[in-house]
Amino acid sequence: MGTFLQGLERGLAVIRAFSADAPSLTLSEVARDVGITPATARRILLTLEELGYVRSDGRRFSLTPRVLALGWAYLSSLDLGDIAGPFMEELSAKTRESCSIATLDLPDIVYVARVPTSRIMTVALGVGARLPAYATSMGRVLLAGLPEEELSAYLESLEAEAHTEHTVTSADELREVVARAGVDGYALVDQELELGLRSIAVPIRDSRGRPVAALNVSAHASRTSRAALRSDVLHPLQECAESISTALRRRGRI
Amino acid sequence: MGTFLQGLERGLAVIRAFSADAPSLTLSEVARDVGITPATARRILLTLEELGYVRSDGRRFSLTPRVLALGWAYLSSLDLGDIAGPFMEELSAKTRESCSIATLDLPDIVYVARVPTSRIMTVALGVGARLPAYATSMGRVLLAGLPEEELSAYLESLEAEAHTEHTVTSADELREVVARAGVDGYALVDQELELGLRSIAVPIRDSRGRPVAALNVSAHASRTSRAALRSDVLHPLQECAESISTALRRRGRI
Repeated sequence: MGTFLQGLERGLAVIRAFSADAPSLTLSEVARDVGITPATARRILLTLEELGYVRSDGRRFSLTPRVLALGWAYLSSLDLGDIAGPFMEELSAKTRESCSIATLDLPDIVYVARVPTSRIMTVALGVGARLPAYATSMGRVLLAGLPEEELSAYLESLEAEAHTEHTVTSADELREVVARAGVDGYALVDQELELGLRSIAVPIRDSRGRPVAALNVSAHASRTSRAALRSDVLHPLQECAESISTALRRRGRI
Repeated sequence: MGTFLQGLERGLAVIRAFSADAPSLTLSEVARDVGITPATARRILLTLEELGYVRSDGRRFSLTPRVLALGWAYLSSLDLGDIAGPFMEELSAKTRESCSIATLDLPDIVYVARVPTSRIMTVALGVGARLPAYATSMGRVLLAGLPEEELSAYLESLEAEAHTEHTVTSADELREVVARAGVDGYALVDQELELGLRSIAVPIRDSRGRPVAALNVSAHASRTSRAALRSDVLHPLQECAESISTALRRRGRI
């Protein structure tokens, strides 16, 4: 592995060491969190500072908005805003609910586009937010598209958490609901991630029929029943996913 | 400069080489765009692929959603979604217009939070989007907070583009409108970035009174006059910025 650039690996790990719980870090905290020596942490932090990705007050380091340019490179290369945006707007207007697109980055799904309604808190689940795949409708339709060995490896290593009393956490049951999502072509998750929240998702497929992303509509459980999600939302959701899939293929994005 | 990690610098530059215009790149395109040898480009791309940030079909490389985790590290460490979100929701409901927060990464502003209304296309200007500082209301209140020498350096190197017939592009005039924004405590930009779009912005200040971010409301020109932005929007906008500033300070984020 003479080609592997360890400095790059560690630099990216240092960026990811910052979070809501650790908005600023000292040099020795970075070294400890990433598992590198303080001397290496210092070289990385000074390099990132010189490049404008990190700033410091002398003792504590924090990230700068320039870091967003990295994620933006992915988002703009996917170009979902321009391509999928109008279709999502239409779906959201038709269903009067929020809709989102996510992709799989195991063990999580990652939000890549979102059209919120003003009725649900909208900022917290922004683009880039991650949720555990097993407990989400988008995660389940994406898991259903994995090769068997990848799905098994995921389920075997999974330590599923019961986010609510409804969360399916056993590997066997999860295998079943994922298989069901594959057969049905959609997944409906009812308050497994959060009490009061239901969502329904369908895959966005590439030209070979593989799910490359998922589209969902989420709704307050108090306002929208499971039956209503199936009878009123599923069909427009499927049409919207088909339109987005066609548009993405035409533009060569999937 | 023995501390500088060139591999890290180049790795980040390779990630940023991808965009809406270049969603996938060959090894030699990456080498040319970043200004490195093909051998170096190969090492970087293989390292990024092994880490899961890049995938390839053998010939063309593209970014994966894992790249979003980098930008997310910044966003979650700022924690604006949780802290500013409720105040922004309230402002958006009160004014019935979209509102956003951006920070300065010269020569651009970078969107870090956004509450869209369904009346304006919402996805395209998502978090991470960049706009030229000089032509935006948020940019102008942030430029007004720069030390004199930084502002001068920015204005001297600026090649301002006339996005519309209204765009202020001369350095002298820009210095004037920026000074005006500093004195007034807000900036109003009328169709300088895009015909039909007006926006008004105020600074979010840290405990020493320095603008660390800006909050704006944007509206269709056909629906909202300049006078209405001043009489109906400015006051709730200022109150909202004050609330966000207080909340961010209390939580130690600024």
